[in-house]
Amino acid sequence: MKIDATQLEDLALGSVFLATGGGGDPHVPLLIAKQVLSKLGPVNVIAPENLDDDALVVAIGGVGAPTVSLELLPSVDDAARTLEAFEQQVGRKVDAVASFEIGGGNSLIPLVAAAGQGVPVIDGDGMGRALPEAQMMSYAIAGVKPTPAVAYDYAGNITAFSTKSTDVYERHIRSLAMVSGGMITTAEHPMSGKELKNSVIPGTLSFSIELGRTLRENRGCSDELLAPLQAVFENSIYGECRNLFTGKVTDKATRITGGYDVGEATIEPFDGNGPALNISIKNEYLLATLDGSVIASVPDLIIIVDYETSMPINAERLRYGQRVAVFAVGCPNFYRSAKALKVVGPRCFGFELDYVPLEEV
Amino acid sequence: MKIDATQLEDLALGSVFLATGGGGDPHVPLLIAKQVLSKLGPVNVIAPENLDDDALVVAIGGVGAPTVSLELLPSVDDAARTLEAFEQQVGRKVDAVASFEIGGGNSLIPLVAAAGQGVPVIDGDGMGRALPEAQMMSYAIAGVKPTPAVAYDYAGNITAFSTKSTDVYERHIRSLAMVSGGMITTAEHPMSGKELKNSVIPGTLSFSIELGRTLRENRGCSDELLAPLQAVFENSIYGECRNLFTGKVTDKATRITGGYDVGEATIEPFDGNGPALNISIKNEYLLATLDGSVIASVPDLIIIVDYETSMPINAERLRYGQRVAVFAVGCPNFYRSAKALKVVGPRCFGFELDYVPLEEV
Repeated sequence: MKIDATQLEDLALGSVFLATGGGGDPHVPLLIAKQVLSKLGPVNVIAPENLDDDALVVAIGGVGAPTVSLELLPSVDDAARTLEAFEQQVGRKVDAVASFEIGGGNSLIPLVAAAGQGVPVIDGDGMGRALPEAQMMSYAIAGVKPTPAVAYDYAGNITAFSTKSTDVYERHIRSLAMVSGGMITTAEHPMSGKELKNSVIPGTLSFSIELGRTLRENRGCSDELLAPLQAVFENSIYGECRNLFTGKVTDKATRITGGYDVGEATIEPFDGNGPALNISIKNEYLLATLDGSVIASVPDLIIIVDYETSMPINAERLRYGQRVAVFAVGCPNFYRSAKALKVVGPRCFGFELDYVPLEEV
Repeated sequence: MKIDATQLEDLALGSVFLATGGGGDPHVPLLIAKQVLSKLGPVNVIAPENLDDDALVVAIGGVGAPTVSLELLPSVDDAARTLEAFEQQVGRKVDAVASFEIGGGNSLIPLVAAAGQGVPVIDGDGMGRALPEAQMMSYAIAGVKPTPAVAYDYAGNITAFSTKSTDVYERHIRSLAMVSGGMITTAEHPMSGKELKNSVIPGTLSFSIELGRTLRENRGCSDELLAPLQAVFENSIYGECRNLFTGKVTDKATRITGGYDVGEATIEPFDGNGPALNISIKNEYLLATLDGSVIASVPDLIIIVDYETSMPINAERLRYGQRVAVFAVGCPNFYRSAKALKVVGPRCFGFELDYVPLEEV
């Protein structure tokens, strides 16, 4: 399978849905990916099972506060230069690159790096969605070490890391992102083909294109969106898809704290009758609470789409007065293990509650 | 010339004086240096002029808030492991190590690294005193690039930097120190022997030992200290030595802000009559103000010693009620050039005034 420039719109659209509000706005990464793939040709996509066990794979993407990606625009070279710096640091070429997260702009960055350096990209990612911290990646949860890793900033400064734990690594890259304008590109979690197969959320790159096509073909009022969404999720690694709520954004406030966008949004029914839905945000939409009851929570996916167009809305673009529909999708099973929930459950984001799978709410 | 374990007490004592309140408490570095030099033998000291022009020299020392060095104790291996990581990063052995700053614990760290890795240490440093930021080093002022550089933290995490400017490098290491417990060891500003000769403040390692011996031989009331101090500074690269004030600390407050110890101290005359001396602190004692007039300012040296014992007191050990004497010493000429004052003058620390050399006050 190959991905060419014509598939990128669908990929970006699907990835914004899977980003659950975070992951960084894909607009500029999309422009960059189109330009690079138009110039350099399509990128080879490898299914994880077709990768050699002793291949060297590295995950690549942007790290920082998504809000910043609207202002500190990535450059066309960032991804390839990051990969190049990584290869120089470890003294060998990589055999493939993989996504941190299929959600948002980070679905596109590996394609740009892959095209620039002439390597294939893995059909799969490290989250199946978007999540804000490195230790929340499936690679890390499955035991892949985060370093040797390399960070590259807007000015071409290069930082190489060799850390003893993912927690420390996360702290280091987060602080570097904060003093580098809020956003850096990193190549990290290098792994063998065998390690990748044991840790990747598989098939999400091709799935995101399929999801994007579904969204494109179903533009219009989101009252009509649930059936086609359910059809596309039914035969996927994801769980049930539900329409949680429809209404108008009456309040939304986030601030950048510790390198994250943190805040809340309130959505009231169109007619003003009945309880409001509250959405808790830390880069991503993490918790949907109705009338005091949690009706969906991380790591399940919570998605907000524009009511009139069915287009997903990122947290940094969510505004007072928008008419929206809120969907939830069960996360891949990988994230429902006790080991995974220890690093991505609601408590990891400061919420005093246990995860209840969407299907059991 | 060689430095052995028996000279370290004098070196540490001289370096606390030259640290002008900052530089990190040398107590634990002294214990470490004694242990390492007793075990591995004396360290060769090379005068800058005897170094080959094409030798590779790297500066090594601690970066962080001095207050932290009282709590997050360095380990005996940190310096040698940092140097080793640097050599691995650049792919070659260094020919000598140099000090960031002769002031405080950073006078001893290069000796520990040198003994551990079997290389000589340069008789000289990059400040002639202590100063809080990387771009204030004579190496940087003379145009030596800060990277490739390597940082090593208390847990053995290694970070390698390749930055385009010293300002960016300073921001990166400062933020790394802050998320690494407040203190890291770095090997940085690699330079050729030729570059070192053009940028080093020469002879300060041997001078610090001589100054320390003078202080040791003149323990006791600081009323007797000025004459021997003037004798030792007279034939040095430093300027005039003055006794600015004698009195009691009546107020002292510092807080850790942005990785620095920032604050003020007030010293009143013993009899309470006459104006108080105010000392402004950012890691180091930067400004001495009497009755609204600045009577000494950075980059000239301001030193506070215990009145009864003449022992220098670091800013993190300065306390309410201490009886002290305040001295000032003209800085080396290197720091009086327009180029140097642009990065170390009072305005660089937020004070709205121009530098006036001590001799002209």
